[in-house]
Formats: sequence, structure tokens, C-alpha cells
Amino acid sequence: MSLVVVGSVAYDGVETPHGRVDRMLGGASTYISLAASYFTKVNLVGIVGEDFAQEDWDLLAGRGIDLTGLDRAAGKTFYWAGVYSEDMNDRTTLRTDLNVFADFDPELPAAYRSKPYLLLGNIQPALQRRVRRQMDGTRVVAGDTMNLWINETREELLETIRDWHVLLINDSEARLLTGERNLRRAARAIYEMGPQTVIIKRGEYGAALFRGEEVFLAPAYPLEQVSDPTGAGDSFAGGFMGYLAERGIDLESGRADMPELARAVVYGSVMGSFCCEDFGVNRFRTLSRAEIDSRFQEFRGLTAF
Amino acid sequence: MSLVVVGSVAYDGVETPHGRVDRMLGGASTYISLAASYFTKVNLVGIVGEDFAQEDWDLLAGRGIDLTGLDRAAGKTFYWAGVYSEDMNDRTTLRTDLNVFADFDPELPAAYRSKPYLLLGNIQPALQRRVRRQMDGTRVVAGDTMNLWINETREELLETIRDWHVLLINDSEARLLTGERNLRRAARAIYEMGPQTVIIKRGEYGAALFRGEEVFLAPAYPLEQVSDPTGAGDSFAGGFMGYLAERGIDLESGRADMPELARAVVYGSVMGSFCCEDFGVNRFRTLSRAEIDSRFQEFRGLTAF
Repeated sequence: MSLVVVGSVAYDGVETPHGRVDRMLGGASTYISLAASYFTKVNLVGIVGEDFAQEDWDLLAGRGIDLTGLDRAAGKTFYWAGVYSEDMNDRTTLRTDLNVFADFDPELPAAYRSKPYLLLGNIQPALQRRVRRQMDGTRVVAGDTMNLWINETREELLETIRDWHVLLINDSEARLLTGERNLRRAARAIYEMGPQTVIIKRGEYGAALFRGEEVFLAPAYPLEQVSDPTGAGDSFAGGFMGYLAERGIDLESGRADMPELARAVVYGSVMGSFCCEDFGVNRFRTLSRAEIDSRFQEFRGLTAF
Repeated sequence: MSLVVVGSVAYDGVETPHGRVDRMLGGASTYISLAASYFTKVNLVGIVGEDFAQEDWDLLAGRGIDLTGLDRAAGKTFYWAGVYSEDMNDRTTLRTDLNVFADFDPELPAAYRSKPYLLLGNIQPALQRRVRRQMDGTRVVAGDTMNLWINETREELLETIRDWHVLLINDSEARLLTGERNLRRAARAIYEMGPQTVIIKRGEYGAALFRGEEVFLAPAYPLEQVSDPTGAGDSFAGGFMGYLAERGIDLESGRADMPELARAVVYGSVMGSFCCEDFGVNRFRTLSRAEIDSRFQEFRGLTAF
């Protein structure tokens, strides 16, 4: 079933201990859409400038992603540059040029509005809400957020996530949002805010899914080399939500069982791990569904006892 | 099958965000022995002073631990005091009084020397080697170490671990020992040093077992409150090695299959999680094997997909 994805499409400059690229395709919705495209039909909502390269457009279109909702506006594409620490657990932003993204006011194509799955990438809560309101009869709404919105637009964020089914958030942000250091307590505090399914991303330590009193813990795939972690969390989200859409999983009717949600988390981890193997979106240029399913099976070996 | 455990027996003063105790039973071999005692017969090697309380002796003896090798010397028992950070990921040592431990020169009781399992707690490598040499026909030798020995007695440590089957080490120490940040590469570097089974303890993120090209990843149990993490790593080691001894697992003949080793790691995680639930060794005063097996089953639910 189709998935609508909204978020940034960008050009990134990235430096890690394993290399440096001054300008390459990036942005949350790019990673989400590419990852999800292995599982389901994706409808992208975003904005790019006149400098957006045809080959990048072709990469997305080539993965079957519907780009009707990707506006091309006068000006330049959002640009972000950052450098990672030696252990890649921290990164420093060197430059953020919003460019055309500063005036992003998403208007969904009519055909997108009745799609059953919606993934709101990490953008301003007000924009996430605006997109949400344009959708009708959505089955599963999931979204991501970050410290900037938690700190600066907290009330707006709380208003926004109230009707989400799934909140995807990293561990430090979950603590910032809830004031709880313990993840189980943090998840419970998030239930009170609305989302009844909480996924806490833990970077190199994997991900945890909380739903009611149930918990599922997935490790990260033990890569021998992380070339570039940019987009790993978004690829995780794309894999997770892509799998839910592929399987037609409904989170409200109680039809979703934990093993099915757990498999979605593992597919998320699989997609995050592939993302890290090369710079930017490069790994998605060659990645096949067979490789994805093979790594999914490898996760069984890594965790079976 | 019997397990010989060597390491410190101590009194600890501990402060965490959840409380403070000025003096209570502690020490690596205390935690290891208590945890392992749920699985196998334990033979403790250590030293205490004249101040060692009868009730503490009784607690160990009451769990069936053989104390023939626990010397009682003139002077005071090893004393350590520390305070944990708010998130409990760091701790500051406030006091270390070696006392009788300064002259610890372990001489194994004759009956211990032919036991098939040996777990060398985190003490000076020279002492670990002395104990190792007194053993005869040991089936599995496992040991722990720490940054102090890696930094100050590196050559001695390398000489010591050369014939160990299992090295138990935490993640930052594995990096310090090998110079490799990536855990898979670190494990491979440790194989070169001798141990062919490497267990990397990751605190609140669980544990990873490496053997050849195989990897098993166990999460930590998602406790809602960690009262006191002191001894969690030692309890992990006790549960891991206790299970190997209970099952009579041999690491050299190739009889050990990964699922069996993986189950040992999960039992280690189970024992570490119980340890954290209360201050010091308190949780072991009431813990039952039924509770342990029940939490082991809970781990299946936490990781199944």
C-alpha cells in the first residue's frame, strides 16, 4: 500500500574519518523514500531548487518513487554540511543554507491525499501538521522529530504528535522530550502524549520498540566499517514504515502483533546498516531486495539463542 | 561441573542517584560466585581480613559456595568506595584501601586444582597467571581485565591471556587493548592475542559475543530502575561461566555451538540485570533459579521477530 513521505531533499557536504564529499544528494525524505521504495510505492513531498540535478531526479524516479509532490522552485536546493567526530557518534554542522526550503509550504497532490501510510520526516512541527491535515483516512501516521523542535517549539510539537500512531525518536531526544532517562519510562511518557507505538533509535546500539507493556530490542548490524552514518536514522524509518505499508499493517484495529512490528524494526535496522556502508545515498544505487532479505535473515543468526 | 573463581572480596561504599550505602559486601569474585552459584558448584579463591562479618561468610556458604580457598588474614578487608554519575554510565572512585588484598598470593586448595572451569576475575595479570598455573587439565579458562592493567602492565597482560579461551572485557577496554574502535575488528585483534571467544560487555546496551566469523548480540534487560550497577559485569561473567559449567560445555573440541554460547550470554545478561535491581549483592539474597529462568524466557520475547 502506498506511503506518503514528507521532509527535506537536500545537497549535503559530509566529512567522516573515512572520506569527504563536498556535495551529494541528501535530505531526510530522500533517505526515507529510497529505503521505503524497496517495500512499497512511495509518494514524495518536498521542494528543490533549480540546481537540482537531473541525475538525482532520475535516481529517485528510477526507484519508482512518485515525484508529483516534489516542487521545483526558483532558487537553490537546501544545503547542509557537517563533519563527524572520530568515533562518528557526534557531528558538527558547518553550514545550513535553507534556500528554497525556507518557504516550503507543502500542498499535497490530490492523488496523495487518500494514501493509507504517512511518514512525516523531521521538519518543523507546523509543517508536519499541515501535511497531516491534508490527508484523509490515513491508516498509520508516523513521524520523526529532533532536539531543535523539542527545545524551541515544544507546545507546537506536542500538539502535532497527538494523533500520530508512531513516534520515531533517538534516545537523547526521547530523554529531552520526556525528562526521563530510563527508556521504558520515557516511552510511557510518550504514550501520554499520543503515540502508542514508540521507537527509540540508539545509533550503533540498535533500536527499541515500545507498545503498551511490550518491548522489542533490535541490535544494530555489526558493520566492520561505517563509512558515513548520515541518513541512517531516516533509512531506518523508511525500512520500518515501508514494511508496514507492504504488509498492510494497521496499528489501530489491534491487528498488528508484536512479531510483525518487530520484523518492521529489523527491516529498519537492515536499511540503516546498508545506508552506512557508503557515502550519502550511494549504497542505494546498487542495493537489491535480495540483499535486504538476506541481511534480514542474518539478523536472526545474530540474535537467536 | 565445578567452577573455580578468583578475584577480590571486598567491602564497598556506593552512592548512586537512588541511594547510598557506606559499607556492604562487594568485590568481583563475590558477585561472580553468587551469580554462578545458581548454575554450578563454585570454589572461591580470595582473601578477607579479620573484620569480615560472619553473616557475609554465611551468605556465600549458604549459596553452596566452597570457601576453602577464601583466606582470612590479619588486617582489614579490601575497601572500595565510589559515586556514580547521574546517568550511572560513569563512576568516580573515592577510596581504595587494598588492606589484606595488597599481599594476596593465592595458593589453591588441592581439591580445586583439577576443576574443569576457571574464571579469573579482574585482578593483576601476574596473580591471574599464578592461579592459572596451579590448575591442571582445565577445560575452559575465562578471564576479565581492565584499563589499569592494559595501561600499566600490558606485556604481562598479553602473556597472561595467551592461553585463555574466553576474554570478557568491556567495550572501552576492548578499544584500549586493541586500538580498534570497531568491535568486530577489536574481536579479531583479540583472537590474535589468544582467546578465540571474545565477549564485549556494553553496559546498558547489552553484550556481544564473537567467535570466529560468528557474532551474537544480546540486549540488556530493559529495567525500569537501575538501583546500583556495581557488580553487574561480574554477575554477567558468573552467569555466563556458570551456564557453561552447568552444561559441561567444552570450547576447544568444537562441541560448543553458537546457540549454546548465546544462551550463556543471555544468562549472563539475566544475572547482570538482577544485580542492578538492588544495592550491592542484596538481590541475590532472595533471587531464585525460577526467577532467573523466567527472565531468560522474557529475553526471547524481547528479541524474537
